[in-house]
Amino acid sequence: MSITVVGSVAYDSIETPAGRRERCLGGAATHFSLAASFFTPVRVIAVVGEDFGPEQEAVFLEHNIDTRGIEHVVGKSFFWEGSYLENLNEAKTHATELNVFASFEPKIPDAYRDSEFLFLANIDPVLQRRVREAMQQVKLVAGDTMNYWIQGHRPALLEVLKGLDLLLINDTEARMLAATNNLVQAAKTIMAMGPSSLIIKHGEYGATLFHNTGPKGERADLFRAPAMPLEEVVDPTGAGDSFAGGFFGYLASVAEKGELTPGDYRRAIFYGSVMGSFAVERFGTERIAQLTRGEIDERFAHFRELTHLD
Amino acid sequence: MSITVVGSVAYDSIETPAGRRERCLGGAATHFSLAASFFTPVRVIAVVGEDFGPEQEAVFLEHNIDTRGIEHVVGKSFFWEGSYLENLNEAKTHATELNVFASFEPKIPDAYRDSEFLFLANIDPVLQRRVREAMQQVKLVAGDTMNYWIQGHRPALLEVLKGLDLLLINDTEARMLAATNNLVQAAKTIMAMGPSSLIIKHGEYGATLFHNTGPKGERADLFRAPAMPLEEVVDPTGAGDSFAGGFFGYLASVAEKGELTPGDYRRAIFYGSVMGSFAVERFGTERIAQLTRGEIDERFAHFRELTHLD
Repeated sequence: MSITVVGSVAYDSIETPAGRRERCLGGAATHFSLAASFFTPVRVIAVVGEDFGPEQEAVFLEHNIDTRGIEHVVGKSFFWEGSYLENLNEAKTHATELNVFASFEPKIPDAYRDSEFLFLANIDPVLQRRVREAMQQVKLVAGDTMNYWIQGHRPALLEVLKGLDLLLINDTEARMLAATNNLVQAAKTIMAMGPSSLIIKHGEYGATLFHNTGPKGERADLFRAPAMPLEEVVDPTGAGDSFAGGFFGYLASVAEKGELTPGDYRRAIFYGSVMGSFAVERFGTERIAQLTRGEIDERFAHFRELTHLD
Repeated sequence: MSITVVGSVAYDSIETPAGRRERCLGGAATHFSLAASFFTPVRVIAVVGEDFGPEQEAVFLEHNIDTRGIEHVVGKSFFWEGSYLENLNEAKTHATELNVFASFEPKIPDAYRDSEFLFLANIDPVLQRRVREAMQQVKLVAGDTMNYWIQGHRPALLEVLKGLDLLLINDTEARMLAATNNLVQAAKTIMAMGPSSLIIKHGEYGATLFHNTGPKGERADLFRAPAMPLEEVVDPTGAGDSFAGGFFGYLASVAEKGELTPGDYRRAIFYGSVMGSFAVERFGTERIAQLTRGEIDERFAHFRELTHLD
């Protein structure tokens, strides 16, 4: 089943202990789409400026990603500059230029309206809600957010959460959103805000899925997945979005066969971790853009083996 | 097979968001012994003062722990006071009184000399080495250490590492010992110092086992285990030592049947996590001292289920 994703398509200048790259193709919707494209058809809604040309668009088209929802306007694309020199787990932001993104009004192509899966990447919750409301027919809606919206735009974010089936956030965001340090308690608080499923990402240590499987949430599945231990991390930018793309892309691909099972969700988390582990091996989209499905399945098998208790 | 453990038997005054306890029975050797005693016979080498009486000794004896190696001397037992008010993952130390521990000279009862397993809990590496050298007949030696010894007593610690089969330390300690941030690289550096197996504990997120299985380390097993997600943590004191006790106790119990397999090590890590998860449910040794083997196996099965990918 196809996924429509709304989010940023951007340029990133990144410095890590492994080196520096100027203006690589980035943005949450870019990383998400590329990762999900290995599993299912993907359609993007975003806005770009005149600096986004055929070369950048080709990265999407080579992965059969539908770019008709990428609006081209006068000006420059969203730009972010950051470094991870002291801590690979936390970016230090040097510059954020919204540019054409400042006046982004998501427009949904008619051709996207039969998408069964919708992903609301990390953007202003007001825009997330607008896209959600315009896509009433979808079967499963997942979303991401960040500290900035949790702290400063809570009422708008709470409205978005009511319309989400699944929320993906990290430890810090979960603790902030629920105002509690214990992650199991935080999960209960957050799921009472709307989403029947929640993935809390623990960075290099894996992720936990909280998942109400009964129609009224009367049966809860809890799944704790470790992450791949990685010997080299070149650039963590986009790891979380690639995780989300692998996770949601895999779910959409198996939804063809009928009702999603707890086992489908568990495998989806493993595919998410696999895509995150590839993302960090090179700068920006370099690694995922060159990936093959064979490499993905090989790493999935390896990951399963090194976390498997007989 | 039986384990001999050398380490501290102490009193702890602990404050956490759940409350406060004065002078509970504690110390690394205490937590380790109690956790390991559910799997295999345990013998303790430690020193205590006049404040350690029959009531405290009974906690060991009720778990069939051999206390003949606990030396009683004039003075007070080791005492630690700390709190976890802001962060349950990190203790703030308010007082450390070595007392009788300051002049500890481990004495090994003759009855202990046929132990096949030896655990060197976190004490001065000079003492760890002395006990190691006096127990040449053991089949498997594991040890723990801490920042204090890594930073200030490195040469003595490096001597201990040469005599260890297995080292158990946490993320921070591994990074400090290897002088690198990446844990996979740190593991390689540390294993070149001596131990053919290394467990790096990630606190609430689980643990990674690095394990050379061939006689010359030509086959490496890597196992990443998540931890139990816990809704309530009353007191984290002793969680790491209880993990070590569950891990090493299980290994010693299955060593009866012959050569240890990678699968034995993997199950041992899960048992370690299970014992750590019980330890934090009450203050000090309160929970583990009341535990039954049935509860342990029940939680093991539950833990396996919530981390299992079919």
